Amino acid sequence: MFSHTMEYALRAMALLAYAQDAEQLTSTIELAEKAKVPNNYLAKVLQQLSSSKLITGRRGVGGGYRLARPAAEIKLLEIVRSVGTLERITTCPLGLANHGSTLCPLHRTVDLAAKAAMDILDDATLADLISGGVKPLCDEAMTLTVSARGSR
Amino acid sequence: MFSHTMEYALRAMALLAYAQDAEQLTSTIELAEKAKVPNNYLAKVLQQLSSSKLITGRRGVGGGYRLARPAAEIKLLEIVRSVGTLERITTCPLGLANHGSTLCPLHRTVDLAAKAAMDILDDATLADLISGGVKPLCDEAMTLTVSARGSR
Repeated sequence: MFSHTMEYALRAMALLAYAQDAEQLTSTIELAEKAKVPNNYLAKVLQQLSSSKLITGRRGVGGGYRLARPAAEIKLLEIVRSVGTLERITTCPLGLANHGSTLCPLHRTVDLAAKAAMDILDDATLADLISGGVKPLCDEAMTLTVSARGSR
Repeated sequence: MFSHTMEYALRAMALLAYAQDAEQLTSTIELAEKAKVPNNYLAKVLQQLSSSKLITGRRGVGGGYRLARPAAEIKLLEIVRSVGTLERITTCPLGLANHGSTLCPLHRTVDLAAKAAMDILDDATLADLISGGVKPLCDEAMTLTVSARGSR
């Protein structure tokens, strides 16, 4: 239902929200590795998120990104819509004059389905994702490996 | 949220459900015209619907399609899934072992959104679309023109 680009944008945003220091930039390479997304693909997604003012930072060597606003102020719906189309149906997709904004039963039902999904994503902020429980995209095995290496 | 192919499949199925004689075949050309979809595109969609045993009929001159089952037994979810992917998230999309089928908060939320949309489409049958109110995809102006011509 959601495109790869939408999924990758959500992964990157969740990782940035989970970054220990919200002010520090996280590099595209690190984000791509943790999100398990090809570097070049993620770089484009990050540019879209940056254009939508959801993240801020700089490209290139030594560059990276951070959230442009507090995690509690960024809804998942906004992320998904910044890189793709997720809209209600407001007028007849066939342009039939007698349907107009009333919609026929088919498009009323499809619109209800879209609304139901959008409502869930509109109710969730990035802050909700990092408040307790299993952390978003956090690979426990990788974390343990890194900790073990760090404590040598 | 739904692909063009999904939308076109729903249109074609709604039109077949609304056909006055459920046993008679409706031609691809007539369906394409009413659904406002290019002929060739719709022909491919109809082949997919036929492969999924949702419609039955034959291609070519004099050919056409009808529903393979009563409209009350065909859910919109089945139609959408027969031509595209609309699935719940059942295991971690990143393959992280410690997430597994529990899912992290990000993918739990995305899964809830998918479930919400799927539930709506799973609750609606083709029969629901044609029971009263504005008819699916019915162009009143066109119907009136045809009636006027027919009554000359």
